[in-house]
Amino acid sequence: MQNPIAIFDSGLGGLTVMRQVAKHLPAEDIVYFGDTARVPYGTKSPETIERFATEIVQFLLRFSPKVIVVACNTVSATALPALQILFELPIFGVVIPGCAAALRASRSRRIGVIGTEATVAADAYRRTIVQNDPSAVVVSRACPLLVPIVEEGRTADDPIVAAVLEEYLAPLKKAQIDTLVLGCTHYPLLRPAVERTMGDGVAIVDSAVEVAKAVHSQLESSGLLRQSDRRGEYAFYASDNAERFARIGRRFLGRLVQNVQHVVPDEDFLAPAVGVM
Amino acid sequence: MQNPIAIFDSGLGGLTVMRQVAKHLPAEDIVYFGDTARVPYGTKSPETIERFATEIVQFLLRFSPKVIVVACNTVSATALPALQILFELPIFGVVIPGCAAALRASRSRRIGVIGTEATVAADAYRRTIVQNDPSAVVVSRACPLLVPIVEEGRTADDPIVAAVLEEYLAPLKKAQIDTLVLGCTHYPLLRPAVERTMGDGVAIVDSAVEVAKAVHSQLESSGLLRQSDRRGEYAFYASDNAERFARIGRRFLGRLVQNVQHVVPDEDFLAPAVGVM
Repeated sequence: MQNPIAIFDSGLGGLTVMRQVAKHLPAEDIVYFGDTARVPYGTKSPETIERFATEIVQFLLRFSPKVIVVACNTVSATALPALQILFELPIFGVVIPGCAAALRASRSRRIGVIGTEATVAADAYRRTIVQNDPSAVVVSRACPLLVPIVEEGRTADDPIVAAVLEEYLAPLKKAQIDTLVLGCTHYPLLRPAVERTMGDGVAIVDSAVEVAKAVHSQLESSGLLRQSDRRGEYAFYASDNAERFARIGRRFLGRLVQNVQHVVPDEDFLAPAVGVM
Repeated sequence: MQNPIAIFDSGLGGLTVMRQVAKHLPAEDIVYFGDTARVPYGTKSPETIERFATEIVQFLLRFSPKVIVVACNTVSATALPALQILFELPIFGVVIPGCAAALRASRSRRIGVIGTEATVAADAYRRTIVQNDPSAVVVSRACPLLVPIVEEGRTADDPIVAAVLEEYLAPLKKAQIDTLVLGCTHYPLLRPAVERTMGDGVAIVDSAVEVAKAVHSQLESSGLLRQSDRRGEYAFYASDNAERFARIGRRFLGRLVQNVQHVVPDEDFLAPAVGVM
């Protein structure tokens, strides 16, 4: 594994981001870290989230990544600027690519955003969109049940999923948005149900797809794109419960999650990083 | 605060246990710790849960508690024996009192248990019941959505709650249980909806009530019961997001949650404990 793309998330949701990165950049090596011992970040304070994210980036630097992708919406919305100041390599979050895609897709400039409690409270999607277009109207809604619903294995055709989405999305439909950002890595797995609930005429923006495109552009313009026919290698690290990570993660990644290694933050994260710093 | 009862949980759910302890032992001081930085434990591995629980007990020892109550079903089901070996003071879990109450309540010896993924996987309720009555039939069901449903503030009359309970409890109704153990501290808040779904003729066992009675008996028989007309004092500690803890915890405790202090496990837990060790 050589100068991989490093991706991290509070848990296994970021595997939907890895799925898109692997699809758009099939030759690249990818290392993924999921902080499954401390998931979810969605109900934690900004200070705690920043501390956890800093520790994780320090851990990832030992792989000498050429770029880091913060797959976690909560971290992207709260700690990304701090990480970008602290570390020298390019670090991508999911918020900015998601907002850019929403602004491209929307005609009415009425844009909806759904995410966790912390992502919505951090208000980063709304602020980013309005900074770029002050005339845009952003309607946000926290949907706390959707993450456990996805992790439980419920799919888009489950009646509980339909009932919960109907309730969560009602104010967004009423606000007559024409574009909806899936502001959480778990939500792409419910995309068919979200589309059905919102109806035709509402564009769905998947931040995972958008960040993969952004990484591709960055690597291409900086001459770091791997030109090769071989498929990239993948490595997985989780801070707890590697077995559950592999079992549930399969649905997120769309392929087998193999050889997940367990790292305990307290011990492994303090070892000297052999990175690009 | 003098030789309090110390109660801990992975988060704020254990406040339902504190509520019952305060009700049954109104003169006692109580110190509560919620590990809100690392909640939920329900999807973590047994090794990690045991490590967290040991750290928390070490922290609580500085208050010289006369007894410790593990309000967390997940910890009670996985790490309690280890804690009882490691530490000398009496440590109560919620599983054994809950099982004892279920065995007293059940006539048909067909007993249901609902809890988190980890509690059901740990199988402690079933094993404990069957050890005491090999003829008992225990039907367990993990209900991963109920904790986030309660924390979101949904109440027993919410249609989503009714739909989710209808689905989760269907196999228990089919198994014709006559007693159902609420094997998670969050569930008492949904008790009216659980009763409605199960119908008459099914006794509901709330472990919080049972552990409060068990602590009362222990203190009485050991001569440690506080004989006083003054009301006990309460202190709260949380490892993250004290504001959210106080705000949401109020519904669990049934009264204001005041003066929540923030303690960060990594720093504060390693300080020397001034305890009864």
